[in-house]
Amino acid sequence: MSELTGPVEIVGTGLLGTSIALALRRAGLDVLLADESADHLRTASGLGAGRPAAPEDRPQLVVVAVPPDHLGAVIRQALELTEAYGSVVTDVGSVKSGPLAAVAGVPGVERYVGGHPMAGSERSGPLAASAALFDGRPWAVTPHEGALPEAVELVDGLVRLCGGVPVRMSPVEHDRAVARTSHVPHLLAVLAAGRLAGAPTDHLALTGQGVRDVTRVAAGDPVLYGQIVSANSEAVLDLLSEVRDRLDAIIDAVDRADRDALEVVLKEGVAGTLAIPGKHGGPTRPTRSVFVSVPDHPGELARLFADAGASEVNIEDVHIDHDPGRPVGLVELVVDEKRAEHLLASLESRGWVTHR
Amino acid sequence: MSELTGPVEIVGTGLLGTSIALALRRAGLDVLLADESADHLRTASGLGAGRPAAPEDRPQLVVVAVPPDHLGAVIRQALELTEAYGSVVTDVGSVKSGPLAAVAGVPGVERYVGGHPMAGSERSGPLAASAALFDGRPWAVTPHEGALPEAVELVDGLVRLCGGVPVRMSPVEHDRAVARTSHVPHLLAVLAAGRLAGAPTDHLALTGQGVRDVTRVAAGDPVLYGQIVSANSEAVLDLLSEVRDRLDAIIDAVDRADRDALEVVLKEGVAGTLAIPGKHGGPTRPTRSVFVSVPDHPGELARLFADAGASEVNIEDVHIDHDPGRPVGLVELVVDEKRAEHLLASLESRGWVTHR
Repeated sequence: MSELTGPVEIVGTGLLGTSIALALRRAGLDVLLADESADHLRTASGLGAGRPAAPEDRPQLVVVAVPPDHLGAVIRQALELTEAYGSVVTDVGSVKSGPLAAVAGVPGVERYVGGHPMAGSERSGPLAASAALFDGRPWAVTPHEGALPEAVELVDGLVRLCGGVPVRMSPVEHDRAVARTSHVPHLLAVLAAGRLAGAPTDHLALTGQGVRDVTRVAAGDPVLYGQIVSANSEAVLDLLSEVRDRLDAIIDAVDRADRDALEVVLKEGVAGTLAIPGKHGGPTRPTRSVFVSVPDHPGELARLFADAGASEVNIEDVHIDHDPGRPVGLVELVVDEKRAEHLLASLESRGWVTHR
Repeated sequence: MSELTGPVEIVGTGLLGTSIALALRRAGLDVLLADESADHLRTASGLGAGRPAAPEDRPQLVVVAVPPDHLGAVIRQALELTEAYGSVVTDVGSVKSGPLAAVAGVPGVERYVGGHPMAGSERSGPLAASAALFDGRPWAVTPHEGALPEAVELVDGLVRLCGGVPVRMSPVEHDRAVARTSHVPHLLAVLAAGRLAGAPTDHLALTGQGVRDVTRVAAGDPVLYGQIVSANSEAVLDLLSEVRDRLDAIIDAVDRADRDALEVVLKEGVAGTLAIPGKHGGPTRPTRSVFVSVPDHPGELARLFADAGASEVNIEDVHIDHDPGRPVGLVELVVDEKRAEHLLASLESRGWVTHR
């Protein structure tokens, strides 16, 4: 039972459910789809995510990917419906204690193992789905104390088939962790974004990249985030009370022109950014951006990458600052700090206009 | 006097000063450099940003790019030193009312026109500089009431030579605008990042892209941001008091499990993200991400861009999710939503593995 061979039933074909289904189909598994919305179900199966589940299906694993408010009830129902053939049941909810409490003591609860992939998008629905959504991303696996070891193994297998990296923790620890790394940052982004709503238009002309980054996640669905935050109220409130204290410290320091007190809070922020692990859990390597002017016709970008490739510098990331009104775009190549000079020299020797 | 032909003296060769110098050199102007730090001055001139200023130089324009605490004094000094030949003086400080107050009534104040480019980096110093830093970015030009029209024109000319887009506003309006679009978002990012400092390591394993974006700017120099926020205390405090009210509303709503009240605040955040203008001031166009697997050897990326180019779809942005431990990287191409299907089909027909 501990090797995942399918079939896998996905209940809820939104962004996450459909993305998991696509990843499992990519791995060759039989995938069954269920959704209250006939539209979503049709779209997901149209995308090749699987076939609609039928009553005679016997899934090895059921993945519950419904909105937070419905998680407990749907997980419970899945355990009941599959009692005869002992399917393992997991979910992808952003909060883990609540659903677990809803199924505590239910017959078959030993077959339930919670999960939570750390991947998403401001967009929602099956059309935003991608089999690659989880590639290289952490995915919390949060077994309760009574969970069967082979059920836990099966959920680990799901994570790996989807390209994710299983991170084991208890449901309570998980909820504390995501309050800190996801829910409270989301609420602070909302507070920053909220100040922009209704601001004079000419004020917004000064919007730079910084505020775009800070506020991006605030575009997320308010109903969904309302459910998520409410489901994790205890851990969120603990941290919000810390945030309120530190906000008061900032207000007080600015008001009294106490520069030292202000710097203490600003330094906590710097320390926090340094605590974030590198993109794939490894250490963060120092990078440097190399800027290159690229004429705005399609072949030029290909030529740039060919030349960058020939210089044998690994490109960590790329940003294109492309203004439709300009004949020349600006491409930012992010590379290992130690290789930046070599890349610049190499591109210049091939005739590219770089900006030092 | 209203056409900028140089020479231009840059006082302060940090990130902004050196970037302006490089942009002006790119445009062929004679650039003079001054800095209290001999190291910075040597580095900047070594980068080709210009030559050290000499007593006999007669700059047409002086650009003051020193830390906020010193702006007023250095602008005043620049006006005094250039009185004989009437140089125009501008600055690039993040706050405009303070420096203006420091030079009010000073002889020659009519030759001072404040400025503030909306560009920067978490990194600082001349080595982080780039002639391309301002390309397509807004740059506030904030003349006081007594400023000479030809001085304003000259500063507009500086902005355009650096590739920026001049945005005219009064010093007071500017300070209110940046409190909203920059200083308060920075402080909220600091509050989010501060919660990560000292968190259990396994909690941080769940760090996703969202919190990285929210907290990125919090890595900025605490001394510099302490100066900036302090210099704009009035406008910042007004907004922080709004933030505190809305934070209290969130805490109260979560505590009382009042979902409607919570959604009201979350919706203000969504409205705020929609108020942000498109990257270059134009309307935001809906985009979609196309994910493609790319084998990890240099030529492959070039081949991908060549094929994407052949399909005649404009690539708005690119992200490379590259894990050194994997033989295949994932490339995200951000394109016009309407062109995404065409690009997918076109890449697939050329043998690429896409992720729908």
